[in-house]
Amino acid sequence: MLKIGILGCGRIGQVHARSLFMVEGASVAAVTDAFPDAANALAQKTGAKVMSAEEMIASPDIDAVIIGTPTDTHFDLIQRSARAGKAIFCEKPVDMSADRIRDCITTVEAAGVAFLTGFNRRFDAGFAGIRARIAAGEIGDVELVTILSRDPSPPPVAYIKSSGGLFRDMMIHDFDMARFLLGEEIVRVYATGSALVDPAIGEAGDVDTAVAVLTTASGKICQISNSRRATYGYDQRAEVHGSLGLLKANNVAENNVEIASGAGFCAAPAQHFFLERYAGAYLAEMAHFVACLQSGQAPSPGIRDGLAAQLIADAAATSLATGVPVDLA
Amino acid sequence: MLKIGILGCGRIGQVHARSLFMVEGASVAAVTDAFPDAANALAQKTGAKVMSAEEMIASPDIDAVIIGTPTDTHFDLIQRSARAGKAIFCEKPVDMSADRIRDCITTVEAAGVAFLTGFNRRFDAGFAGIRARIAAGEIGDVELVTILSRDPSPPPVAYIKSSGGLFRDMMIHDFDMARFLLGEEIVRVYATGSALVDPAIGEAGDVDTAVAVLTTASGKICQISNSRRATYGYDQRAEVHGSLGLLKANNVAENNVEIASGAGFCAAPAQHFFLERYAGAYLAEMAHFVACLQSGQAPSPGIRDGLAAQLIADAAATSLATGVPVDLA
Amino acid sequence: MLKIGILGCGRIGQVHARSLFMVEGASVAAVTDAFPDAANALAQKTGAKVMSAEEMIASPDIDAVIIGTPTDTHFDLIQRSARAGKAIFCEKPVDMSADRIRDCITTVEAAGVAFLTGFNRRFDAGFAGIRARIAAGEIGDVELVTILSRDPSPPPVAYIKSSGGLFRDMMIHDFDMARFLLGEEIVRVYATGSALVDPAIGEAGDVDTAVAVLTTASGKICQISNSRRATYGYDQRAEVHGSLGLLKANNVAENNVEIASGAGFCAAPAQHFFLERYAGAYLAEMAHFVACLQSGQAPSPGIRDGLAAQLIADAAATSLATGVPVDLA
Amino acid sequence: MLKIGILGCGRIGQVHARSLFMVEGASVAAVTDAFPDAANALAQKTGAKVMSAEEMIASPDIDAVIIGTPTDTHFDLIQRSARAGKAIFCEKPVDMSADRIRDCITTVEAAGVAFLTGFNRRFDAGFAGIRARIAAGEIGDVELVTILSRDPSPPPVAYIKSSGGLFRDMMIHDFDMARFLLGEEIVRVYATGSALVDPAIGEAGDVDTAVAVLTTASGKICQISNSRRATYGYDQRAEVHGSLGLLKANNVAENNVEIASGAGFCAAPAQHFFLERYAGAYLAEMAHFVACLQSGQAPSPGIRDGLAAQLIADAAATSLATGVPVDLA
Repeated sequence: MLKIGILGCGRIGQVHARSLFMVEGASVAAVTDAFPDAANALAQKTGAKVMSAEEMIASPDIDAVIIGTPTDTHFDLIQRSARAGKAIFCEKPVDMSADRIRDCITTVEAAGVAFLTGFNRRFDAGFAGIRARIAAGEIGDVELVTILSRDPSPPPVAYIKSSGGLFRDMMIHDFDMARFLLGEEIVRVYATGSALVDPAIGEAGDVDTAVAVLTTASGKICQISNSRRATYGYDQRAEVHGSLGLLKANNVAENNVEIASGAGFCAAPAQHFFLERYAGAYLAEMAHFVACLQSGQAPSPGIRDGLAAQLIADAAATSLATGVPVDLA
Repeated sequence: MLKIGILGCGRIGQVHARSLFMVEGASVAAVTDAFPDAANALAQKTGAKVMSAEEMIASPDIDAVIIGTPTDTHFDLIQRSARAGKAIFCEKPVDMSADRIRDCITTVEAAGVAFLTGFNRRFDAGFAGIRARIAAGEIGDVELVTILSRDPSPPPVAYIKSSGGLFRDMMIHDFDMARFLLGEEIVRVYATGSALVDPAIGEAGDVDTAVAVLTTASGKICQISNSRRATYGYDQRAEVHGSLGLLKANNVAENNVEIASGAGFCAAPAQHFFLERYAGAYLAEMAHFVACLQSGQAPSPGIRDGLAAQLIADAAATSLATGVPVDLA
Repeated sequence: MLKIGILGCGRIGQVHARSLFMVEGASVAAVTDAFPDAANALAQKTGAKVMSAEEMIASPDIDAVIIGTPTDTHFDLIQRSARAGKAIFCEKPVDMSADRIRDCITTVEAAGVAFLTGFNRRFDAGFAGIRARIAAGEIGDVELVTILSRDPSPPPVAYIKSSGGLFRDMMIHDFDMARFLLGEEIVRVYATGSALVDPAIGEAGDVDTAVAVLTTASGKICQISNSRRATYGYDQRAEVHGSLGLLKANNVAENNVEIASGAGFCAAPAQHFFLERYAGAYLAEMAHFVACLQSGQAPSPGIRDGLAAQLIADAAATSLATGVPVDLA
Repeated sequence: MLKIGILGCGRIGQVHARSLFMVEGASVAAVTDAFPDAANALAQKTGAKVMSAEEMIASPDIDAVIIGTPTDTHFDLIQRSARAGKAIFCEKPVDMSADRIRDCITTVEAAGVAFLTGFNRRFDAGFAGIRARIAAGEIGDVELVTILSRDPSPPPVAYIKSSGGLFRDMMIHDFDMARFLLGEEIVRVYATGSALVDPAIGEAGDVDTAVAVLTTASGKICQISNSRRATYGYDQRAEVHGSLGLLKANNVAENNVEIASGAGFCAAPAQHFFLERYAGAYLAEMAHFVACLQSGQAPSPGIRDGLAAQLIADAAATSLATGVPVDLA
């Protein structure tokens, strides 16, 4: 039985605790949070011990840690956990700075610990499903990938300011998805965007409506579009056009009710947001992490995937600022 | 070039004229109607001659007639046209009386003329498609057929009174479809119904909401439901459950627009009514009729199919009246 | 915190334990099973005590019991639990005999204990959703209900023999659903069926393909169809035709992947079977049961709903045997 | 009754003749084609006279001409028809050279004749429907437009060489659609592409897989993707994301049959190609042209719309060649 420590008992920490309840072979052994109430609540539900991050990382009883704390704490926790030999499940982004992620890679690889970067969407039945069917050759060669991703509503402007901007905060998921579905590295990025949803986002120096075009060395193309607002739920779609066919991961509806009237045939909105939409993905992600720890296989996406997505996001931000495409080294 | 005469230049006669414009190898040579204006208008569009029914049936230049006049005139026109050696395309129902249909069968078969009963739905891409795929073995043995058929709104009560009732006027299409899809004769009918849409329909001695259960000798089952009113368009669906899978003919939407908002994802209503919904079926039906005349093959559905559907309708009406299932001889 | 005892730690008992983990305000305090391993496994996961049914029912620490044991044990467990003052969550069917259910009603009502009959489908987001929207008046008056329900594959013939037959074992869910959606009692039942899936089922005296027509005093009509085999997953649909529109509870797909190729656009099969399809319903059902115990409200569906469905199933079995409709008192 | 002359009796000329049969108030009076057989066949079907282009343009009996000849003949026919005072329905592109289109504008506007540029997709029930609903305010402000357009299979390489390239031959439809849906002029174009479908297309100096990003002065964004090959039919979709919702024009299926089996739920491919997919659009386009001639209203899209799309196509070709975005004056 693997003993897992959860660093950060907020919304995402609780999701991972629930996943661990469902997954065989692992249990939540320790929890920590800056707010004692949050830690205690999760401890009560799981039977875990409340401890400080220091204690958890130092404890020989803990096999792995889940880092679900604010992004600016990731670097330090990764460094210390890796040196203590803990396997690491780290929420995305690994860090806002590509250089600091490189530092983490050095430490993690020197320590030889397992590392999973929490790009949860890779584990969604839809996205994982199309990737698996691409891999099985069902649509032949991948040529053109379209990713549409729209949040129900924008975060507070205060959050926007510290978020690193839309490309590093929101579209980074899609950059990882592009790599996942293209199966080839991105060599060029063109991005543009506007503040159409809320002028305050523009005043904060960010955009809320954006597109990017990514190309690979062999000429495959990926287009991504983001909006910070969708009235019809959390819009999360991808489609991959290949030489033999098209694979789509469609939206997931809130329910399976349909009403027909003079207004036509109306189905439910898309599931509202990521906790609901990706509930199954979070569970599959944890099952993968635990299975890797049990088998000794390296988790995927790993820390280098975290870096790769960050570099694309940096390039997109540069492209937006300069108005021209940016080449990745 | 086959020369066709159209008896009755109302809505359905015009549909058939349009189909003949699209079909190679046949033209509208003569038209007749009780209202001279209707006949003239159709003549102008098609270049056909206006003549009386008598003249048309007597004319050696006419190869085939299309009977699109009121039901109570069918018997006489069939008898005369058959004796004159014309091929016949007759709108359903052939006649309200099974005995009179039998008389027509005698005449038609004695004359050896081609006869198509206008069960247009058999030629719809959806229903014809599922039938063809059943025949190709795609779902194995047919076990359970479900037919849902609902009109946008009820006809005037005056029409209801002379219609022969829902089973003979509306559900008769579904009885023919049941035979078409089951591929086996019906041996037992149970039907029930209510006047829920309009009490005046009940006062006129008819129902507006009805279901029927049909069974075959080998135990295949078909359920049919009808309503005289659907707010969302002309509801026309069938599904066939077989040993290897399920085939469905879905509704056809008015257009391919979809809107997503807080209310969900809304698509267009079903195409409003039969002229629109079955435009393609009418064309395919005419193409079949013309092809049969050219090749000498017997058109299908033929006059005996018209009788078979009428007998099931009679049995359903009896079942409704008596409350018990009725066996077909 | 409500203390719940689980009687029967098989597949369904485990589902309820998982639901209780998700529901606030209740915990699994005791478990029992004829197989000690099953009881121990569930105890370990939940922290519950393993005890005998006698001990559980006698324990003053247990507020409510969940009866998930074989049907022939329900009667005795209900009687004893009710007399001990336990709230009861009993899987369907309450019992195979309507008379014995009446005995249970007497005991349960005399004891004044809460009782939930486990018609889980009432809690499905689809079926609950259409019921709620009917109640909100969205489709006006209910006129015609269509329920299609098909299992992926038949149970072993040995099970069929002791099951009470398709109407009491399988279609009973649909009879309950009919009452739930019609909002009015059934007064007449016509049923027919065949053994088309497996002749051995016919030799065992049962059918595997069946339809029923139910009517209410006001003339509303419900049609149900069942098959013991569907190659495309667990087919679970209902639609309600009303004066203002149509409400449908559609199937739920295994995933949201779609592939387009020369073969067309293909989406995933329906979720395979009831544990997956009704996972959300089981959770909502448990949340309702716990909320009722907390608030003092009577759970619904109650024990009288269990009786009503059984009486319709008995009538359907009689109709199949006699070939004529059966009136319910 | 308007008298229309058809210049070019190939595939598209025949489509327009059929539309004119359906439209009230206009008839095909004259036809011309380089191949006498083609002209004669269409004359026989419509009752039109066969004449030379010179005779048609000189004839005082002809009110309007439909130019469906090869693109390199458009310039001359437009100049002569306009000077002769004929209303003009010209297939797209008006010409391959923006300067020559400007010449045509001068002539057409000096002559004061009605001019329709044949961007048929604007008349499709789907695209026209979303435009109308945008105009009605149903999705608030337009922010992000996504157009996906893929042909079933590439044209012969010989055609590619004389086509002006993918942007001027194929994506030009989407550039017009972008203007139609954005409701605002394009100020900047970024385009990229690859030859992934067929290396011979790359050797011919063209691409077969391409995307473009268009931006407007107010910051609205449109992404377009094209492929010269789609195994699942003629893929023609657009969606418009606005402040209040999302409008989609979905693909149109070949038929409404669906099959369910272990492989899932499979619907028909998209309608195969433009004659089938846009049959209704061609009819609506002709009805609009005729209605404009009757009312004196200017047809839309007009000749300036033809120029605008060509300028965007030129910019896209430049962007592909240079690797950077191109600003439109």
